[in-house]
Amino acid sequence: MKISIIGTGLIGGSMALKLKQKNLTSKIIGIDKNEEHLKEAYSLGIIDHYSSLEEGVKNADLIILAIPVDAARKLLPDILNLIGRQQTVMDVGSTKNGIVSAIRKHPNRLRYVATHPMWGTENSGPKAAHKDAFTGKAAVICNQEESAPDAVALIQKIYAALEMNLLYMNSKDHDIHTAYISHISHITSYALANTVLEKEKEEDTIFQLASSGFSSTVRLAKSHPEMWVPIFRQNKENVLDVLNEHISQLRKFKSALEKENYDFLEALILNANKIRDILK
Amino acid sequence: MKISIIGTGLIGGSMALKLKQKNLTSKIIGIDKNEEHLKEAYSLGIIDHYSSLEEGVKNADLIILAIPVDAARKLLPDILNLIGRQQTVMDVGSTKNGIVSAIRKHPNRLRYVATHPMWGTENSGPKAAHKDAFTGKAAVICNQEESAPDAVALIQKIYAALEMNLLYMNSKDHDIHTAYISHISHITSYALANTVLEKEKEEDTIFQLASSGFSSTVRLAKSHPEMWVPIFRQNKENVLDVLNEHISQLRKFKSALEKENYDFLEALILNANKIRDILK
Repeated sequence: MKISIIGTGLIGGSMALKLKQKNLTSKIIGIDKNEEHLKEAYSLGIIDHYSSLEEGVKNADLIILAIPVDAARKLLPDILNLIGRQQTVMDVGSTKNGIVSAIRKHPNRLRYVATHPMWGTENSGPKAAHKDAFTGKAAVICNQEESAPDAVALIQKIYAALEMNLLYMNSKDHDIHTAYISHISHITSYALANTVLEKEKEEDTIFQLASSGFSSTVRLAKSHPEMWVPIFRQNKENVLDVLNEHISQLRKFKSALEKENYDFLEALILNANKIRDILK
Repeated sequence: MKISIIGTGLIGGSMALKLKQKNLTSKIIGIDKNEEHLKEAYSLGIIDHYSSLEEGVKNADLIILAIPVDAARKLLPDILNLIGRQQTVMDVGSTKNGIVSAIRKHPNRLRYVATHPMWGTENSGPKAAHKDAFTGKAAVICNQEESAPDAVALIQKIYAALEMNLLYMNSKDHDIHTAYISHISHITSYALANTVLEKEKEEDTIFQLASSGFSSTVRLAKSHPEMWVPIFRQNKENVLDVLNEHISQLRKFKSALEKENYDFLEALILNANKIRDILK
């Protein structure tokens, strides 16, 4: 099977490495607007060739779209225009409802499978890719009934090779759940970094005192805007909904402290501790 | 050297294990109101004996106070009443100004050294202790000029054995910096857990979808109120100050999304990305 990967960064690159190791592909073609990334991906053995978009899409059995969500949404109709009935396209974006709605009436809709592997780091680019990135993590397939059964079967095979656990849900529910579980964490982390940068002018002190707790809470604040602005834009309503709730939860802590109501503070913390049972 | 450790949990236990490994002590006496913890600490080889507070304090060259900050503040004057000029007391609490102020005029003030090792996890109790917990992390000594030079020298030797990097600052500055760098992270994380628990009623979905990003941001929300309510209480003013800033930073994200001002959103994220240079 020939696979073209559009976007040879962290996600696309990590997939390429694993699929090659599992012998699922004889050849990986890399497509990327960023020539640096293409060259890096080639020299790291992530891709075997690189090519233009049109040529790369036409020559592959499977096309994996691994670019920021707004670019993916814009590009997907062009890709579907180029392919035939034997080819399959998947994307890997963190928001699903926008892209699925954009191509709902496309004549080749059946050849596209909407997916979201729930893994990422604060790093990006081919150098950040590693082959066991996805093992044991969850991946979602959205609106599978809108895709051809053989296309879905191929994508299931891909995710099995990536050693991910598949879940199925509709694109609307997906975007609500990811707002809760992934997108809000990023906003929290960005805002925390900005808080500390605003209040703590002694950078040396931040560096010297930063405990592992701080580092882990603020880790996501290193994530790049090229990826995250489009996610927040596409999932604006859900993210705002959760963000409002989050601000109101923080206000409860503020009120407990201001009123010196330490029983309430304890109750808030005990409630938060329930996350221990859920996350194990 | 005989060491008594009051509080045989995560911090006290981890210190005991390392100090024994480094042969800094011939005998560790455990003191704990929690009998379960004492028995566990004994059976795990963390302590060699256990005893009452009075006996344990009288028979030790060094007394390490490793209990929640309000209990430590209350107990420290009693301990200083019990000791002689050859003995040294240190505490390890996350807030320093309250405890230092409480014993400023005590006749044995010189025998006490105020410290804070910047390490912890969301777990507690002797079972969570491990000997290399502190290696490479920062530890703070506060108001060293209020302690006898030989007492400070002993504590420096202890932290060298724990392989921590020592910093010196006054207790007021310490409490401001830790509000920024440690205490606010915990409030953020608790509030994030409460947000998700409030909005996402499908616990299975949280469990299945939780990405490593979410898990890392919410990890601190597992921390127990017995430790954290007293910290927030003792550092109330500083924590409120940073919490207000944090809420105002989150409101900027809310405003950027509501107004669909994606340039502003990008600027907020780019600013947060600066934490990358500081934390490496």
